[in-house]
Amino acid sequence: MTARSAPSPGAGSAAYVLAVADDAMVYAQRLGEWLTNAPQIEEDMALGNVSLDLLGQARGLYPRVGELDGTGRGEDDYAMFRDERQWRNVHLVEQERGDFAQEMARMLWFAAYQNELYAALLGSRDPVLAGVAGKAAKEVRYHLDHAQHWVLRLGDGTDESHRRMQAALEWAAPYVDELFDDHPIAVAAVDSGLVAKPPSELRDAVQRVVEAAVSDATLAMPEAPTWRSRGGRDGVHSRPMGYLLAEMQHIARSHPGATW
Amino acid sequence: MTARSAPSPGAGSAAYVLAVADDAMVYAQRLGEWLTNAPQIEEDMALGNVSLDLLGQARGLYPRVGELDGTGRGEDDYAMFRDERQWRNVHLVEQERGDFAQEMARMLWFAAYQNELYAALLGSRDPVLAGVAGKAAKEVRYHLDHAQHWVLRLGDGTDESHRRMQAALEWAAPYVDELFDDHPIAVAAVDSGLVAKPPSELRDAVQRVVEAAVSDATLAMPEAPTWRSRGGRDGVHSRPMGYLLAEMQHIARSHPGATW
Repeated sequence: MTARSAPSPGAGSAAYVLAVADDAMVYAQRLGEWLTNAPQIEEDMALGNVSLDLLGQARGLYPRVGELDGTGRGEDDYAMFRDERQWRNVHLVEQERGDFAQEMARMLWFAAYQNELYAALLGSRDPVLAGVAGKAAKEVRYHLDHAQHWVLRLGDGTDESHRRMQAALEWAAPYVDELFDDHPIAVAAVDSGLVAKPPSELRDAVQRVVEAAVSDATLAMPEAPTWRSRGGRDGVHSRPMGYLLAEMQHIARSHPGATW
Repeated sequence: MTARSAPSPGAGSAAYVLAVADDAMVYAQRLGEWLTNAPQIEEDMALGNVSLDLLGQARGLYPRVGELDGTGRGEDDYAMFRDERQWRNVHLVEQERGDFAQEMARMLWFAAYQNELYAALLGSRDPVLAGVAGKAAKEVRYHLDHAQHWVLRLGDGTDESHRRMQAALEWAAPYVDELFDDHPIAVAAVDSGLVAKPPSELRDAVQRVVEAAVSDATLAMPEAPTWRSRGGRDGVHSRPMGYLLAEMQHIARSHPGATW
């Protein structure tokens, strides 16, 4: 983190890849919490597997960030030794674990988003990004299936599960717009051939997938929320992010280079 | 849990299978805690995968318990709705997560134990037990490799890592004997053809594996501990077990039948 050195030629690309990786890393962390908390063993395993897929995506991307930004940093440098303001993930993924319906609402939006994003990365000029996208695209389709299945089951279930699933959709709504903001770094990534589309052009397809799942489940799309999250891509995070990083990083930071 | 009904013909077998499953389930829980806490992403993933393997073993076994004991109960009935006194796991797996060296000491003993146990279950007269053992045997060899690798790396590493790894072996020592106690249920399982050997006859092979790993790592086997754990196979547990169950079960119990 040498602020004085001249930016490397790949600094803009590095910043773009970092945001993709940070979304995956932070959501992996949140989903990993379910491994010891899910209401069913089957779901323990399913959410644990989704978490591991997302960790794998982040691990595939972080070393590429270190090449592009010229620092040669590795995955743990990014995951374990960055402060909150240096993280580029959206607020949706950093929010605290809520009930199971909230998790499925979040997963529905995020997996639908990643599904379109990785499709737009398959032809990336960056071979590492294209390679990670190729593998991740298959994983994300499974995540999306899983979320769709649960939204349907809960929405079209008991009165209580329907009520909770509807409330979960309302809970997630303020965090959705941020996924599709055309941040200058993402726009530059389109210009440089890293990704086929800017975030705003992913939205229609994502929205259709979510609306279909919601409608099949006899639920209603939330009305436009009265506020929306902002700032994640610039390193401005909501309160849960600090606690998440503390848990994730404290062992690595208290014994740097060691394995406790 | 109908105490008045006559014991089913398979009640003894059910009790044996339950103990095998509970060891896997409880250790899966402890290892799952690392998914959000490991010092390296690579290790997050490795321990997360081991946890998921163990969950898979437990899921393969619990429904068989429900067939053998005649109750027809399923995996979540066993995992989510039993009280502490009904769990049959050894104390080793229920102990709180310590530092990373402690986890590797525990994994070394437990994976070496499971490696011999599943070998002794491969020819089980019970087809489900034999089937789970066949799959698990491969998984457990990987867990054992992983623990051996880390014990070597830490023991033969820095002064600090050597000191911590040695301390970790001392920490684990009092929980080892319990793995090899010839509980009457395990002895009966040999008589009925469920398993080829009683626990005491697994010990020499396990001990050799652990001693070789410890020696390769320039560490020393601990002296005989001044106390040893007892009671897990009879449902008598140590203090951490109650907290573990509370975390694992509270969502399922607070909304039985639901998915929160």
